[in-house]
Amino acid sequence: MNKELLEKTVTQLADLIKNRKVSPVEVTQNILEYIEHSNQKTNAYIAITADTALQRAREAETEITAGNYKGVFHGVPIALKDNIYFGNEVTTMASKIHGNFVPENDATVTAKLRDAGAVFTGKLNMHEYAWGIDNNSPHFGAVHNPWNPEKVPGGSSGGSGAAVASHSTYTSLGTDTAGSIRIPSSACGIVGLKPTHGRVSKYGVYPLAWTLDHVGPMAKSVADAAAMLSTIAGFDVKDPTTANVPVNDYITGLNGNVKGLRIGINEAYFFNNVDARVEKIIRDRIADLEKLGAVVKSVSIPALRYAEWTELATSLSEASAIHHRDMQARPNDFGADIRFLFELGELFTGVDYLQAQQARRQLKIEFAQALSEVDVIITPTLPFLAPNIGDDKVDINGKKVDFIENCIRFTGPSNLTGLPALTVPAGLSEGLPVGLQIIGRAFDEAVLLNTAMAIELMKPLGNHRPVLAP
Amino acid sequence: MNKELLEKTVTQLADLIKNRKVSPVEVTQNILEYIEHSNQKTNAYIAITADTALQRAREAETEITAGNYKGVFHGVPIALKDNIYFGNEVTTMASKIHGNFVPENDATVTAKLRDAGAVFTGKLNMHEYAWGIDNNSPHFGAVHNPWNPEKVPGGSSGGSGAAVASHSTYTSLGTDTAGSIRIPSSACGIVGLKPTHGRVSKYGVYPLAWTLDHVGPMAKSVADAAAMLSTIAGFDVKDPTTANVPVNDYITGLNGNVKGLRIGINEAYFFNNVDARVEKIIRDRIADLEKLGAVVKSVSIPALRYAEWTELATSLSEASAIHHRDMQARPNDFGADIRFLFELGELFTGVDYLQAQQARRQLKIEFAQALSEVDVIITPTLPFLAPNIGDDKVDINGKKVDFIENCIRFTGPSNLTGLPALTVPAGLSEGLPVGLQIIGRAFDEAVLLNTAMAIELMKPLGNHRPVLAP
Repeated sequence: MNKELLEKTVTQLADLIKNRKVSPVEVTQNILEYIEHSNQKTNAYIAITADTALQRAREAETEITAGNYKGVFHGVPIALKDNIYFGNEVTTMASKIHGNFVPENDATVTAKLRDAGAVFTGKLNMHEYAWGIDNNSPHFGAVHNPWNPEKVPGGSSGGSGAAVASHSTYTSLGTDTAGSIRIPSSACGIVGLKPTHGRVSKYGVYPLAWTLDHVGPMAKSVADAAAMLSTIAGFDVKDPTTANVPVNDYITGLNGNVKGLRIGINEAYFFNNVDARVEKIIRDRIADLEKLGAVVKSVSIPALRYAEWTELATSLSEASAIHHRDMQARPNDFGADIRFLFELGELFTGVDYLQAQQARRQLKIEFAQALSEVDVIITPTLPFLAPNIGDDKVDINGKKVDFIENCIRFTGPSNLTGLPALTVPAGLSEGLPVGLQIIGRAFDEAVLLNTAMAIELMKPLGNHRPVLAP
Repeated sequence: MNKELLEKTVTQLADLIKNRKVSPVEVTQNILEYIEHSNQKTNAYIAITADTALQRAREAETEITAGNYKGVFHGVPIALKDNIYFGNEVTTMASKIHGNFVPENDATVTAKLRDAGAVFTGKLNMHEYAWGIDNNSPHFGAVHNPWNPEKVPGGSSGGSGAAVASHSTYTSLGTDTAGSIRIPSSACGIVGLKPTHGRVSKYGVYPLAWTLDHVGPMAKSVADAAAMLSTIAGFDVKDPTTANVPVNDYITGLNGNVKGLRIGINEAYFFNNVDARVEKIIRDRIADLEKLGAVVKSVSIPALRYAEWTELATSLSEASAIHHRDMQARPNDFGADIRFLFELGELFTGVDYLQAQQARRQLKIEFAQALSEVDVIITPTLPFLAPNIGDDKVDINGKKVDFIENCIRFTGPSNLTGLPALTVPAGLSEGLPVGLQIIGRAFDEAVLLNTAMAIELMKPLGNHRPVLAP
């Protein structure tokens, strides 16, 4: 097993593959060997598809040897969250009900990565239907945080977070309805990007709450997230919610230059009730950005006071609408935690839901106003350090608070507005990574990536590495 | 009083004004004199604004005399439905609660007509908040059908329908959430057009159910409806639901040529449970169109079976969300009929509402499919002849059925899909006009207007005229 090779980013690995320093087959065999071992500790994979991976690796090798190099993902082993469809392969949503579900077609993101030459090594664990309160997946078991196996990796894309952080995949995709890309990315110390709503097709991605759902990169580095976004973004005739807005080149110009960048800070909401250790790290990184020439100013977004209720009324209602029939026909085939959420979601009235949409519209207006005054808004991604697996309460400055509610407190608003939001590792506390969230204007993912690059170049994790690493 | 002048269409009147055969002041004085008289019989006007009308007429006369003729509406007396805002003038929504409401700004449609030189003669009666079961407006009294004053004019834009049909206004605007332009237009024997959703700005128009609401022309002739649409259509930065789609010239090419036009007929839904006299008239006009070279084919739209429930779940939920606070604070200030509807609207769950949106999406897909096979779909506008004022049941072939439910049965689907739909007089039965509905593709109002022109040229009302006419 070649440890050094496992620890490469996609960008670094692609360079080696392109220049024929390593072959896709060698890379794939190496990571498959490692996954067998590491997955016993992380439980990040629901299924490992070794045979088809090796088959695709050989095809990639043949293509590259013949001079047909397709680009950065060609021959690169990747695993995706198991609510993203693979045509003619089981896609479970980590559920019992869809335990044997075989979609006819690839999701658009799967097809794009397939066309780009990616080698799919398996399906990653997640909360059942990307929802849930328990940190244990009732059907596929808990995922363990590579930085501390007693801790949660965050959810719902916990398998993606743990797999990327433990180097069991070179990169991944997650889905994000209230923070499910950014929460595990923050907890696992990786880069997670929820793109603008409409930026990436959701065709063939099982919905949780369709007006809030997003698909996006979870990556070892900012450059990898940029490469992934460049590959998966764009209008898709199969998804009427995608926007016909040109896709930027997210890689060129990624230099971390933040001179003159206007950073907005909203103390009232995004720095309220935050673990002091987390808060210090975020404020330190903002100060570092100021030293690099960024300008910090305060922004006011009063409608954030309605954000939590609005997120719950919207997501619970939509999720319950999707699972309504199965909840009537076979409620006991759902895990107890999401069964409770789906029952709760039936209690909102249509008027509640619509009032939430009115609050949501106000939130969009106020965020747009704030983002006319600044280029990005910076917040902590999570207000706490990752708790132990099984805990439903989490400690914030000595006070026990509800885990799920606080999990989505800072991430949820960007699902309501549809604005892009990225988390980047900003420091370590108690051996656990702390993520910094950057929110930006619609379709302006480039500025988020470049701001994150500035943070990444500060090397905020130093030489620390996860316990569960090669 | 000059009767002949009152009976002109806008297009005819504009020709006289443009060529200085009549002056705006003369036209305005003439219609104001008539309104005083006719309104005692129709009750179409809530308020008559004689002073400001004469003032604007004098301004128009000065402008035109100076050679600054602005176009077809310059100096033309017009009255609008009283849920369309006039800046600094009382706009009541025919309600008690908004009885003294003075908006700051004009609605965009008001401003466009104002800019076009229209002379506003007053505010037209309607169902309270454009909603309601009773045929009596609880606060402003019942409107009478000009063809038979014992009959309803249809709602909710009943004042607009009666005013246009009785020549108490040269043309008007209505709003349409489930059929409120087309129902009174059909019952009053005029042309009513609900444009594509996003075609006409709703800024400054009091909402009933915002995803279903539309504003559109109610006119004496197809040419007048085309002129009105040309004036009010287009993208509006103040209304984020407007579409940035070019506005056609709706007047040029309006010749009634239907050679080769593909007409779709859906027997299962749109010819089910229709008064035999109405049905005969619609089928006769379709046969007449065939004689002119149109081709008739059957179209299948199975999701129409869910249309009535979907319309009710959507409109009741949205309307109740808007009036939720007033219903808690001062329920008795609403008329009993809409108080009941707002109570009913609180009973839908968020899941109900969202399932309705899923059904709605299916309906859009199926209508788009049908309209890829044909150019227009023709239906009766209403399945019955206008009943007596006060009746909550209506007779269809000897069976008493619910009035409100059957009122919106054929019009409601186009509010759910957002597709344009127009009603044009197609014949008379028992002395009452019968409207024919034409549904078309999104933003293809031109083909609806031209098909309607073919019907209009058949002179389906012969020389019959309303009882309440000059």
